[in-house]
Amino acid sequence: MTDLWQNAMDHAVALARKAGSLVRDAVQNDMKVMLKSSSVDLVTKTDQKVEQLIIDSVKEKFPTHSFIGEESVAAGEPCVLTDNPTWIVDPVDGTTNFVHGHSFLSCFSQLEFGVVYSCIEDKMYTARKGKGAFCNGQILNVSDQKEISQSIIATEFGSNRDTEVVDKIFSSMRKILCLPIHGIRGVGTAATNMCLVASGCVEAYYEIGIHCWDIAAGAIIVTEAGGVLMDVDGGPLDLMSRRVVAANNKIIAERIVKEIDAFTPLRDDASTETED
Amino acid sequence: MTDLWQNAMDHAVALARKAGSLVRDAVQNDMKVMLKSSSVDLVTKTDQKVEQLIIDSVKEKFPTHSFIGEESVAAGEPCVLTDNPTWIVDPVDGTTNFVHGHSFLSCFSQLEFGVVYSCIEDKMYTARKGKGAFCNGQILNVSDQKEISQSIIATEFGSNRDTEVVDKIFSSMRKILCLPIHGIRGVGTAATNMCLVASGCVEAYYEIGIHCWDIAAGAIIVTEAGGVLMDVDGGPLDLMSRRVVAANNKIIAERIVKEIDAFTPLRDDASTETED
Repeated sequence: MTDLWQNAMDHAVALARKAGSLVRDAVQNDMKVMLKSSSVDLVTKTDQKVEQLIIDSVKEKFPTHSFIGEESVAAGEPCVLTDNPTWIVDPVDGTTNFVHGHSFLSCFSQLEFGVVYSCIEDKMYTARKGKGAFCNGQILNVSDQKEISQSIIATEFGSNRDTEVVDKIFSSMRKILCLPIHGIRGVGTAATNMCLVASGCVEAYYEIGIHCWDIAAGAIIVTEAGGVLMDVDGGPLDLMSRRVVAANNKIIAERIVKEIDAFTPLRDDASTETED
Repeated sequence: MTDLWQNAMDHAVALARKAGSLVRDAVQNDMKVMLKSSSVDLVTKTDQKVEQLIIDSVKEKFPTHSFIGEESVAAGEPCVLTDNPTWIVDPVDGTTNFVHGHSFLSCFSQLEFGVVYSCIEDKMYTARKGKGAFCNGQILNVSDQKEISQSIIATEFGSNRDTEVVDKIFSSMRKILCLPIHGIRGVGTAATNMCLVASGCVEAYYEIGIHCWDIAAGAIIVTEAGGVLMDVDGGPLDLMSRRVVAANNKIIAERIVKEIDAFTPLRDDASTETED
């Protein structure tokens, strides 16, 4: 399987660059449009275009592989992990005004590789199982901080504005801030937050409400940089549960887990219903 | 005065690049140290070194000018604005693991120019009164979004962990999030958050607890990009009050002002006491 995964990863990196240049063009040529209210549509259009480009290209090279993609799932395609090699694709991870890049990866029972390309900054994050994590070829290592009081934690407020959810998000954030920690950051995308953990720029990232395509690539980049992943209840990470803690080590991860008021969004692999 | 300010700004840009390369070297050569608990000291050391470099160089070129600098004030120098041209210097704006760059500017009754150099990304933000704002030579324009529900707001939790302050920070953030808005971001430094407003990447930034050297350069960059500044109570910005709202337009600024639970930190120009 070694050659298969190396080939697949090389292909993913090449596609990431290609997709990145599409996104960069969309952003630069259309900056004025991006900054208007129609920007959500522009992002969606670029999203769909880039996801199709990736899927078409991978299908041609690896005809038996399966896909999970944000846009495909939105269009009604199934979102399930099987034993078949599956590419989890997030064409453009980033909101309206914060188009950071995109991420995708393949997994086969276990995550095999991850690629996150932050196209505006031209940072290519890659990791392959057992082979380490890199940014533009430089090896990545998580922070070796063990003191929660010296730690910076990344998280996001998410897009759900239901009172009960917002209550829990604020309550968790407040408890963590007042542990105390050094600070809370949120750069707007799960993939980028996870790359910040892998780079040692923040000690941990947690969030409830993200999707498998937001975190799959980042997950292996974090573990290959020496970090740990877990569920927000301290159990093993479940890629479909929409809950994640990614940290530099178990001490920091378990310390923040204690403060998180967990809740349970509809799973990514729940049969038919749709939810944001 | 025109030539004076142009000369001063050119000098500031050259110094920013020089200081940026010092910071970049410190970060890159000493990445391992940066990521350990001693990193706070390293940042402080670099801070002091860079501030001294800037002050020495400006004093040589403009011997009559005054200075306000984070490190000088920490060392007991006065923090007052007079009619004399005053350089407000923030050598390294960014916390432990997030060394973004540094900012400085000169002001003479009114802000004359601002320079923020994000040295890791190599982004040089500049603005001069009446001449527009630029990033690496490209003109900056604030977002033209007028709908608060489509807006992204930047803010920070700050470093004060007193219950009363944390209560107000969370309460304001929650009310703003649930207006609703598109999202809240915080990249960790006031200067960078203000440059995001100027670039149209976020609609507004607000914070209580920052210092004049955190926001002075960003303030003119925002207004020259077409944005507005005000106090968190809706009155005019007072550079020494440690409170700021920077927004793309008055509509967005005034909408978020309504939701902010304002409080009054010790002013930067309060005579002797020190406070974080």
